[in-house]
Amino acid sequence: MLKEPIVTVDETIVRKNIRKMSAKAKKHDVLLRPHFKTHQSAEIGAWFRQENISTCAVSSYKMAQYFADNGWQDIMIAFPVIPGLVNEYSDLARNVTLHLFLSDPEAFDMFKNISHPVQIMIELDTGNKRSGINIQDANLIASLVQKIQHESIHHFAGFAVHAGETYHAESIEQIKSIYTYNQKIFQQLKMQYPEAIISFGDTPSATNANDFDGIDELRPGNFVFFDWMQRQLGSCCADEIAMAVECPVVASYEQGERLVVHGGAVHFSKESVQNEDGKNIFGVVAGTEAGQIEPVGFVESLSQEHGIVKIPKEKHRTFSIGDTIPIWPVHSCLVADIAGFYKETNSGRIIDKM
Amino acid sequence: MLKEPIVTVDETIVRKNIRKMSAKAKKHDVLLRPHFKTHQSAEIGAWFRQENISTCAVSSYKMAQYFADNGWQDIMIAFPVIPGLVNEYSDLARNVTLHLFLSDPEAFDMFKNISHPVQIMIELDTGNKRSGINIQDANLIASLVQKIQHESIHHFAGFAVHAGETYHAESIEQIKSIYTYNQKIFQQLKMQYPEAIISFGDTPSATNANDFDGIDELRPGNFVFFDWMQRQLGSCCADEIAMAVECPVVASYEQGERLVVHGGAVHFSKESVQNEDGKNIFGVVAGTEAGQIEPVGFVESLSQEHGIVKIPKEKHRTFSIGDTIPIWPVHSCLVADIAGFYKETNSGRIIDKM
Repeated sequence: MLKEPIVTVDETIVRKNIRKMSAKAKKHDVLLRPHFKTHQSAEIGAWFRQENISTCAVSSYKMAQYFADNGWQDIMIAFPVIPGLVNEYSDLARNVTLHLFLSDPEAFDMFKNISHPVQIMIELDTGNKRSGINIQDANLIASLVQKIQHESIHHFAGFAVHAGETYHAESIEQIKSIYTYNQKIFQQLKMQYPEAIISFGDTPSATNANDFDGIDELRPGNFVFFDWMQRQLGSCCADEIAMAVECPVVASYEQGERLVVHGGAVHFSKESVQNEDGKNIFGVVAGTEAGQIEPVGFVESLSQEHGIVKIPKEKHRTFSIGDTIPIWPVHSCLVADIAGFYKETNSGRIIDKM
Repeated sequence: MLKEPIVTVDETIVRKNIRKMSAKAKKHDVLLRPHFKTHQSAEIGAWFRQENISTCAVSSYKMAQYFADNGWQDIMIAFPVIPGLVNEYSDLARNVTLHLFLSDPEAFDMFKNISHPVQIMIELDTGNKRSGINIQDANLIASLVQKIQHESIHHFAGFAVHAGETYHAESIEQIKSIYTYNQKIFQQLKMQYPEAIISFGDTPSATNANDFDGIDELRPGNFVFFDWMQRQLGSCCADEIAMAVECPVVASYEQGERLVVHGGAVHFSKESVQNEDGKNIFGVVAGTEAGQIEPVGFVESLSQEHGIVKIPKEKHRTFSIGDTIPIWPVHSCLVADIAGFYKETNSGRIIDKM
């Protein structure tokens, strides 16, 4: 019987997700630079390598170091450069092709302290309002390109955009319209800077778009596991969700309609999405309904170690104390970050991660 | 310069918070059984011991084992028993006085498999709807007490309640009214079961209540660090918040009104509270205003590694790339769980944790 929550990853589904995205990138002649923040695992990285993918993105220096140690030679840290890490960047750049983000003009001075040449990507903000230089600031962008080329030892590699707005889209149409808006910007940029790489990334765009003209490089991450948020956005089907958190049932109330599982905020994080009925949910209990994989229940609330699961009576699903419930997370990246390791769903084998 | 987010804990404030709660418990003649899930640190546990506190609560078996290894002899696992852990409970009970929760009548059978006597607390639900037996089920409660006493090797120790509703209270008056409602229940229970220990715990009640008649044991946890949620609930003042996440500033936009820090969902978790203006916030930038510690900015959104901080212009606070901003978390327990260690705020010394 299960002693504590365990994060499972289905290798068959993951490999299928990788192959599908890789085939799409090939078909459209764009480089796939998968974002490894989602899995943070050298072994899963190797599954990408088996599909001839040799470039990756990460979200921190530590992750870059981990994947460099595991043989990755072309790594992009898709996060604004951190002044405290100039020595680490310098050392890493000696061993791998390192792409770094220039996200604020003030950060240019910092690059002067990086003693080995790196590939500078200017991060642009096309409306996400997270990090990046406002796409409207054409003069500023032009002057930064000039500065990199003439006042530094580094290479100007191109432009990077993360259109995180797609995560708040309410329909596939809205995702596509955000994507099309971005694509027009890229096509213009490409005319102005024909040598620049345009790197674009987010799973909702990468899965839903079908025309990548203007884009050189795709940088999605989440598609490796997917999750309930992506299913709700329309980026995947239920049978493409590769990750679950297996939780032991520890109490059952209201004739089994309210369950308590060991599986709380420290396992799932506190990411939530609004369900069809307007309520926030923190995870989904998967089941098979008439041959289809469908939700049979929802995690209604989380405290530190408790998960409260609602199983509607009409679902006829009874769980008892000691049973294990596999729960799809709302956001697999955050669950992966917390997990110490993964258990492969079918074989039970341990998959190591950083 | 800071290389990555670091969680700081101010020893002076923590010791003050411990002394204050300890003095309150002594004054009202209740046992303080602090919930160590908040700090998960043997060293901070030792600060409690220096105030003559020798009992604690934890939220998982692993935490219980950690504190047992660090000399704690009377431990309550304030979470429903997990069937998969019967052997672990048996072993632990040989070395320490172990209190376990019976939260569902079905779990009684499981206790038969625990081979060393433990102290059974019947967990009651007085309205929180998380775990525990409904307080209305008087016959069920009576039969469970009977069963423990006559059909098991274990001791019936008492009743435990967590009134988590107080975390959703909108005023101190509402916290007090939830508390008073619970207290009446305890006074009745005490008449029926005079030998039973009544263990009650949550920081909003423990800090705001001033009459503990009917209660034998207080089980608050968060008060050791406090956080912005508690400040908003009225459980603490700003100068009692002992924890902050120090984050490096990596980009600044809109004349410094929007900052990007390295400090995201993987450092803060995604707990949020509604600010006065109705917006959800994920952390608070502290500053001194006219001699008072007051917020000068808010974390408006979090992605995996990015925190977006808004600093209103009228606050006249300018941060540059490379600066470090200390950010109060919304929920210190979740930040503590993620942290690998703490840095003592004033000395810079490392405080280890599990």
